[in-house]
Amino acid sequence: MKTTRHSLSATLIAVVLAVVGTQIVSAAEDPLPSWNDGAPKKAIVGFVEKVTKDGMPDFVPPAQRIATFDNDGTLWAEHPLYFQFLFAIDRVKALAPQHPEWKDKEPFASLLKGDMKSALTGGEKAVAEIIMSTHAGMTTDEFERIVKDWIATAQHPKTGRLYTEMVYQPMLELLAYLRANEFKTFIVSGGGIEFMQPWTEKVYGIPPEQVVGSSIKTKFELRDGKPVLVRLPEMNFIDDKTGKPVGINSQIGRRPIAAFGNSDGDREMLEWTQAGGGARLMMLVHHDDAGREWAYGAESKIGTFSDGLMAEAKKNGWTVISMKNDWKRIFPFEK
Amino acid sequence: MKTTRHSLSATLIAVVLAVVGTQIVSAAEDPLPSWNDGAPKKAIVGFVEKVTKDGMPDFVPPAQRIATFDNDGTLWAEHPLYFQFLFAIDRVKALAPQHPEWKDKEPFASLLKGDMKSALTGGEKAVAEIIMSTHAGMTTDEFERIVKDWIATAQHPKTGRLYTEMVYQPMLELLAYLRANEFKTFIVSGGGIEFMQPWTEKVYGIPPEQVVGSSIKTKFELRDGKPVLVRLPEMNFIDDKTGKPVGINSQIGRRPIAAFGNSDGDREMLEWTQAGGGARLMMLVHHDDAGREWAYGAESKIGTFSDGLMAEAKKNGWTVISMKNDWKRIFPFEK
Repeated sequence: MKTTRHSLSATLIAVVLAVVGTQIVSAAEDPLPSWNDGAPKKAIVGFVEKVTKDGMPDFVPPAQRIATFDNDGTLWAEHPLYFQFLFAIDRVKALAPQHPEWKDKEPFASLLKGDMKSALTGGEKAVAEIIMSTHAGMTTDEFERIVKDWIATAQHPKTGRLYTEMVYQPMLELLAYLRANEFKTFIVSGGGIEFMQPWTEKVYGIPPEQVVGSSIKTKFELRDGKPVLVRLPEMNFIDDKTGKPVGINSQIGRRPIAAFGNSDGDREMLEWTQAGGGARLMMLVHHDDAGREWAYGAESKIGTFSDGLMAEAKKNGWTVISMKNDWKRIFPFEK
Repeated sequence: MKTTRHSLSATLIAVVLAVVGTQIVSAAEDPLPSWNDGAPKKAIVGFVEKVTKDGMPDFVPPAQRIATFDNDGTLWAEHPLYFQFLFAIDRVKALAPQHPEWKDKEPFASLLKGDMKSALTGGEKAVAEIIMSTHAGMTTDEFERIVKDWIATAQHPKTGRLYTEMVYQPMLELLAYLRANEFKTFIVSGGGIEFMQPWTEKVYGIPPEQVVGSSIKTKFELRDGKPVLVRLPEMNFIDDKTGKPVGINSQIGRRPIAAFGNSDGDREMLEWTQAGGGARLMMLVHHDDAGREWAYGAESKIGTFSDGLMAEAKKNGWTVISMKNDWKRIFPFEK
């Protein structure tokens, strides 16, 4: 009896010590190993420590720890074109046999010849035609399947990597660090909500109900007695610029205390976040690393980071992250 | 040394036994004490046990355990009128001094005289005028404050209770029981999303980001350099009937495995839930208790439960909850 109890207690002590030991090791481990020591990393850690210490003036209860992230250019890359647009191009190619008329119809004719420049001379109208012809006309279940198949196999034109590998390692660490501190992390993106929802949980740990994005209208129908939602070629909501606070307010119903973006499209989201009062963290990823990623800013049509945005960031105390200087590693596949 | 270690181990054993003991006691407690033993309670418990047992054929991973609840008539009462409409009436009265023209303008003139019947002879147009004049024209922050003040003080015309006391005790227990089993609970209501978000967390334990509802448009503006969202007198989305699956798909991005409603407005939500395949639970609250609450059904304009819905429930195996027979207690304030 004595031996048994002693042996059980020894086991319990070993377990307790192992658990305590793990926690000590975890606490000492750097939660942001891909971030160089510098102002952005310091700002993140300082902010998180400030809002999570109960009894301190900046403490924020867990339920209110809302952090919003733009996607394109903030969580994953966006060059040479937004990945969703590359998806649309791949879909035009895949659907071309069912659309013989596209051979003589712009923007499809140029696009199918690989002449992107001519395809896009039609401007926004051309883009809308490409998007609607590839994103509407099917059920939501069918679209989800199409996105899942594409994202599992399609390769980035420059790196040959899966698009889900073109995510930023430092931001994955940031998402995990915030969640470990009881933040709820949301995507707030100009991209299509149903283009993102099928894979954000696996790739970012962000479940579909925490994705805010642009959308087209859908319509409930019974097909052979079975209910389906049909995707219509009509915009419902554009979650960009002034749309971002609108989407946040409607879908999240609380103001974020931290917001992360990279372009002029995120400006109002950061303004809205800051205007809430109390401790706030606003950050912008700046693409200044032509060697490891891309370098672009005010002049770029994709992910424009205007001089006006830079001036506002300085004026408002928003942190600008230099990919070149602040990130040790950009993509998870780098050594 | 020996003594110390032995004493520590004894303490640990005591702690372990205490924890194990607590779990056994919890498991034996009835999680649904306000439900009579009957088909609905059995269906709920059977369903939850089925989908939460790892390794069993009907097991559903926690992330996919989405349960959606209608609000009016399902989580709280809806008679003599939808509570949000009673809010609008109270707001018309409060705003009347600022609108002298309402004295001669319908539907306001009749409404201010307390003549509801005449006020509503204008039908949907009259209702829309009452809603828009009380729900639009202010910022989202101002509206949140108005709702919070009203919900904290306004009294139900029949019971004199706060509206947040007019919630169904059995449904509060059901929400808690589902969450204890790692379900994520959502409201999917025809009511205004911004009318519900300010208080659902406190009353139901449902955070604002898990509320799907109808909405009017909002517009981002800078006022004295400070960003605000202004509520516009224009519908954005009606989250009722076929709108419910649309709202669920867009905002939750996953199909529920359990859905709870009480009227024709919930029909498509239940159809959409059931069509997902796998284990599913669809339930309808039937208001058949004139003594403790209200009794109404096919003939009622508020919370219509048509004969067609009843027939569909029977055909599809949806569970109809009789408030009279299945609920021991209706409101938390009852003895």
